[in-house]
Amino acid sequence: MSHISCYAALSAKSLLSPYKIDRRKIGANDVEIAIDFCGVCHTDLHYIKNDWGITHYPVVPGHEIVGKVTSLGKEVKNLKIGQRVAAGYIGNSCQTCSSCRAGFEQYCLKGFSTIFNSPTKDLGGFAYGGYSKSIVVDDHYVLTVPNGLDPAGTAPLLCAGITTYSPLKNWGIKPGMTVGIIGLGGLGHMGVKLSHAMGAKTVMITTSINKAVDAIKLGADEVLISTDSGLMKAMANQFDFLLNTIPGPHDYNHYMGLLKVDGTMCIVGSIGPTAELNTEHLVYGRRRIAGSLVGGIKETQEMLYFCAKHQIIAEIEIIKMDEINQAYERMLKNDVKYRF
Amino acid sequence: MSHISCYAALSAKSLLSPYKIDRRKIGANDVEIAIDFCGVCHTDLHYIKNDWGITHYPVVPGHEIVGKVTSLGKEVKNLKIGQRVAAGYIGNSCQTCSSCRAGFEQYCLKGFSTIFNSPTKDLGGFAYGGYSKSIVVDDHYVLTVPNGLDPAGTAPLLCAGITTYSPLKNWGIKPGMTVGIIGLGGLGHMGVKLSHAMGAKTVMITTSINKAVDAIKLGADEVLISTDSGLMKAMANQFDFLLNTIPGPHDYNHYMGLLKVDGTMCIVGSIGPTAELNTEHLVYGRRRIAGSLVGGIKETQEMLYFCAKHQIIAEIEIIKMDEINQAYERMLKNDVKYRF
Repeated sequence: MSHISCYAALSAKSLLSPYKIDRRKIGANDVEIAIDFCGVCHTDLHYIKNDWGITHYPVVPGHEIVGKVTSLGKEVKNLKIGQRVAAGYIGNSCQTCSSCRAGFEQYCLKGFSTIFNSPTKDLGGFAYGGYSKSIVVDDHYVLTVPNGLDPAGTAPLLCAGITTYSPLKNWGIKPGMTVGIIGLGGLGHMGVKLSHAMGAKTVMITTSINKAVDAIKLGADEVLISTDSGLMKAMANQFDFLLNTIPGPHDYNHYMGLLKVDGTMCIVGSIGPTAELNTEHLVYGRRRIAGSLVGGIKETQEMLYFCAKHQIIAEIEIIKMDEINQAYERMLKNDVKYRF
Repeated sequence: MSHISCYAALSAKSLLSPYKIDRRKIGANDVEIAIDFCGVCHTDLHYIKNDWGITHYPVVPGHEIVGKVTSLGKEVKNLKIGQRVAAGYIGNSCQTCSSCRAGFEQYCLKGFSTIFNSPTKDLGGFAYGGYSKSIVVDDHYVLTVPNGLDPAGTAPLLCAGITTYSPLKNWGIKPGMTVGIIGLGGLGHMGVKLSHAMGAKTVMITTSINKAVDAIKLGADEVLISTDSGLMKAMANQFDFLLNTIPGPHDYNHYMGLLKVDGTMCIVGSIGPTAELNTEHLVYGRRRIAGSLVGGIKETQEMLYFCAKHQIIAEIEIIKMDEINQAYERMLKNDVKYRF
């Protein structure tokens, strides 16, 4: 973000850091990016609060990064100084395992490095993310931003966009299919736009009648209020695919009967223990529950071209960096349409 | 079973029946079968005890039926008197919905009729199953038994066989894949034989070291003791497919880390609420949990030909019909190798 200097998030400011905070030197394969915009994702807040017990303070989150190239390592051939580029959640991976070789770095068998909070071997510290003026990223993990995509609205595509694009692509969403997007937040609103652009009949599934108008504006063909048992029953066996973006534990079984035989519900929002599984919907209908995590570098680039072609960006509210704490508070109250 | 007359199971004998017990007349598309052997499945016991609240007493269970044709309706062209035939769990279905048209009557959108305990329209009562001397079945649901298959060992193929064959076939099991069969009972022992015959590296996954020798005899390439955390860790990310035959609620999450990226665990044994779902293994690895129910008529016939080709039958212990109550007691104690 051009407005502010490096931000050590929330309480981290008051912690003594045992780690060096020098930025790493630009190696032969590195790209230095001047950051123009960075999206604010719930994952950032999980790191700040150390919800997952893996945070190394001081932490600088931010993994939906759009900016311009300011410096290139000598081995980087495919980028130019001044070029509009982006970086997302994945900062590095082994590039030798079967997942990396297939272009799915998010499932790297040795574990990928996140763009922030991962060890930086050269300095012995931990990487800082996109809530900053600049960042240095290995060129394999730098995406090019196609012309015609608004840079601010593009930033959230690097996480919310690819997290929904990847499963929709993987499960072959296309015209003739019926797709349900469960939950209308940062992920859900991208899911609606992308599913619609892929040509599927797209149904917003939400508990809130208040979200119906917005959902239609975003591209939903229909809205299904999931608390209405009559509607839920009427829509049983109608969906080829459900993209479940609900961010916390919930009774996902409630939605399984909506799926056709062989249909899949893919969970992208809730990671960890959630409700008890009732296998009835799986067994009587050969239905599946799956999960999906962001997306690989190749498919992230593909997603950016797809979005350029279909003129898709995230719905955003632009804030200055010193408004981040209020932004987190509002995010927790779902008071944002749909991404900071 | 030729040894005994019609058996009204367990306590059903003492109940007054509001239903007619006449056998239906042989319609134009019906086949009358003299029953030689009938397998004993846990599902039969569920019906007898009314575990699922759907039993109509008096109930005559039995849905792994092998016998010979004794009478044919005038429209039945593909069968002959005296021919060795079989019938399984599915007694009828709509034949008009997308599932039936695709040959997956087990997922009939209007609900299929089980071969016993389903209403018989002509008589206004409920059908009786294979624990009997004879049965009348619509010809679409009658299978031919290939020459060279032992009839007694064939009977359990009609449920335990097809319940494991159908998912192995559906998920494309073939040489080069690694398949884990979880649980070594009636279903599991068929899963091992069939996966092995399909050419996959087949691993028996069991809590009991005592089952290792049997598993290898049945065709398993390896045995994984699932209570050994070191072994479980060593086998992480190794399996393309897991066939989970455990018959009751259990922590299926325990096995999910064994799957490769994009791997599937298919549940065929436990129907209903089971353990809490932890989505971590789904999200970090795009893994899937699925279910599967018996199999369609077309694939059941295909399975019988597959078994004839590979000389696969169930491991059985033959009992007389009046030993059924002891058989159920022993089944509950896992005291059968592997099917009565």
